[in-house]
Amino acid sequence: MDIMAEAARIEAAGGRVVHLEVGQPAAPAPATARAAAARCLEEGRIGYTTALGIPSLRGRIARYYAETFGLDVSPERIVVTTGSSGAFVLAFLALFQPGDRVAIANPGYPPYRQILKALGCEPVLIETGPETRWAITPETLLAEHRKAPLAGVLVASPANPTGTMMTGAALAALIAAAEDAGIRFVSDEIYHGLDYAFPAAAATAAAVSERATVINSFSKYFCMTGWRVGWMVVPEPLVRPIERLQQNLAISVPTLSQVAAEAAFDGRAEMEAVKRGYIENRRILTGSLPKIGFDRILPVDGAFYLYADVSRFTNDSLAFARRMLAEAGVAATPGVDFDPHDGRHFIRFSYAGSAADMAEAVERIGGWLKTG
Amino acid sequence: MDIMAEAARIEAAGGRVVHLEVGQPAAPAPATARAAAARCLEEGRIGYTTALGIPSLRGRIARYYAETFGLDVSPERIVVTTGSSGAFVLAFLALFQPGDRVAIANPGYPPYRQILKALGCEPVLIETGPETRWAITPETLLAEHRKAPLAGVLVASPANPTGTMMTGAALAALIAAAEDAGIRFVSDEIYHGLDYAFPAAAATAAAVSERATVINSFSKYFCMTGWRVGWMVVPEPLVRPIERLQQNLAISVPTLSQVAAEAAFDGRAEMEAVKRGYIENRRILTGSLPKIGFDRILPVDGAFYLYADVSRFTNDSLAFARRMLAEAGVAATPGVDFDPHDGRHFIRFSYAGSAADMAEAVERIGGWLKTG
Repeated sequence: MDIMAEAARIEAAGGRVVHLEVGQPAAPAPATARAAAARCLEEGRIGYTTALGIPSLRGRIARYYAETFGLDVSPERIVVTTGSSGAFVLAFLALFQPGDRVAIANPGYPPYRQILKALGCEPVLIETGPETRWAITPETLLAEHRKAPLAGVLVASPANPTGTMMTGAALAALIAAAEDAGIRFVSDEIYHGLDYAFPAAAATAAAVSERATVINSFSKYFCMTGWRVGWMVVPEPLVRPIERLQQNLAISVPTLSQVAAEAAFDGRAEMEAVKRGYIENRRILTGSLPKIGFDRILPVDGAFYLYADVSRFTNDSLAFARRMLAEAGVAATPGVDFDPHDGRHFIRFSYAGSAADMAEAVERIGGWLKTG
Repeated sequence: MDIMAEAARIEAAGGRVVHLEVGQPAAPAPATARAAAARCLEEGRIGYTTALGIPSLRGRIARYYAETFGLDVSPERIVVTTGSSGAFVLAFLALFQPGDRVAIANPGYPPYRQILKALGCEPVLIETGPETRWAITPETLLAEHRKAPLAGVLVASPANPTGTMMTGAALAALIAAAEDAGIRFVSDEIYHGLDYAFPAAAATAAAVSERATVINSFSKYFCMTGWRVGWMVVPEPLVRPIERLQQNLAISVPTLSQVAAEAAFDGRAEMEAVKRGYIENRRILTGSLPKIGFDRILPVDGAFYLYADVSRFTNDSLAFARRMLAEAGVAATPGVDFDPHDGRHFIRFSYAGSAADMAEAVERIGGWLKTG
């Protein structure tokens, strides 16, 4: 946030900043989605929808699981949410009680722990590293569960900030271990579709267990961040409690966004072209960052993040990011935002921008490191 | 909800239902708002906004307080929210701790108590009646506070389901009593602008105290229910905590809805015409309902609700509403939805529909009561 505000100040003063700090696509929503929203605007009143979402959208999402995974998910188990943010709040309230311990990976997406804390739960950080491919494993999960019982575990693949993914086998093993121990499993799949090293699509928790809660979003693959629309696949017994929670906490999800989301599924060719842009950006960064000194990079599996160990340059990633912004004009996110323990040694680069920006960023950082 | 689902079943089977159960305007958002959203759709990416809302919208809302109340409210104290629903969650998390007792009026809007309970607070129902014009008073508030300390009190004027309003003097006296006793004051002003008996606009809590938290919405006066956009005026020390909460719980508010909301302020002439429709509906209902037997009606001050005592017909308002729907084809909401104590004696009629619907509803109910 510091870095974003400082980048905005530099640009307001006429300076040039290359943005590798932003966690959202530069492309707009699919044309199909925008056209559907425009039609809806012309039709008149945009009223509340049912709390669980527009039935045809719930059906379309269920069909996505059939098409993508050959999986039969009942539309009854699909809950449309106000972004994945809305889904986390509903899932945590439905699954956990105040005081419950819920495991999440460190490093990880900061709102996980903040939302859990706001709702009175205790986030339990499980350290990850190269030896576990930066994921929670059955061993590390159960070790923490033995210290004091865990009520739940939340896993993201592809993950933010690391960009790493779990294999289908690793995910299935972790779900089995969690459920055997009575630990509720929540799978954050909002970067699904943005997989490069191997297909994340093969590894939805919905295919592994009907007791897992799956969270997804139209923000990333479908480039719909500002629309605030996502979904969940929930265990059948949670449908009614989550419906009641959403009725009370939100009434319903923004209607235009739901209409656009349903049409977004028809815009996948356009989104595949956007994805090819990320693939090219990833090629540029993974090819050239090691040459200018970033030679310790986590596996660049998916999403649009590259997480680099910068300990050969600094012990203070925030100060490093500030200097890189001020002196090289490149914004990136310091690891301290994601990892309270070891984040001072890491920087997250987002490659959701243009190929030209990637090349320029490498050039600028390389020149800066040589002279700095 | 039962009644709505049953009404939908009747219509799906080809039957005709007159809807006086729906708590949302039949009119669309102002043309200015829809046009602004359409332009935004054409411009490209719809990304996240800052957590507190688009700065120009926050400024426009601040200007509304200057224009309407001659009040100088800093844009810094304006928080844009995902409907008033989002505002309640943020306000309760920022103001209260788990276990806190928070007073609300009975009868009242059911999500107040459900959201408070979901967040671990204890909703404390304060009974209201004709002797206090269906509002919490300093006396009833402090009597409850003496039983066990209250952390907060939430008041709505105009109120749902009663349609009653507090005078400016009554609101100011209640705020003073609450704040003197250290009780945080939350004012739900989402029906502001829809006042008939006397101007509610004269009575915003923002004019009384800078320590009060005011919640408002574009849903009702501006007919933007499905857009999910509202706002708060918050005490200055709460701005930063609420910004952090919104960053973590929502990231930001739907962007199209924010853009449309800002333009909605230019569509007030259109909304005043919609309001004139409510005034005509109110005239029809208050003139004719007493003649067909609904002779005990609460003061029909504002919003678009009329709350009628039906104890001369029934001791079970849900069964009464079901029969009225099945036999007369008129949907209305039983008081049990709003009042766990005495709701079985009341029915809420919403007059947000058309004048023709109001006349038809009275005719149908009158005929039914005569033959029934």
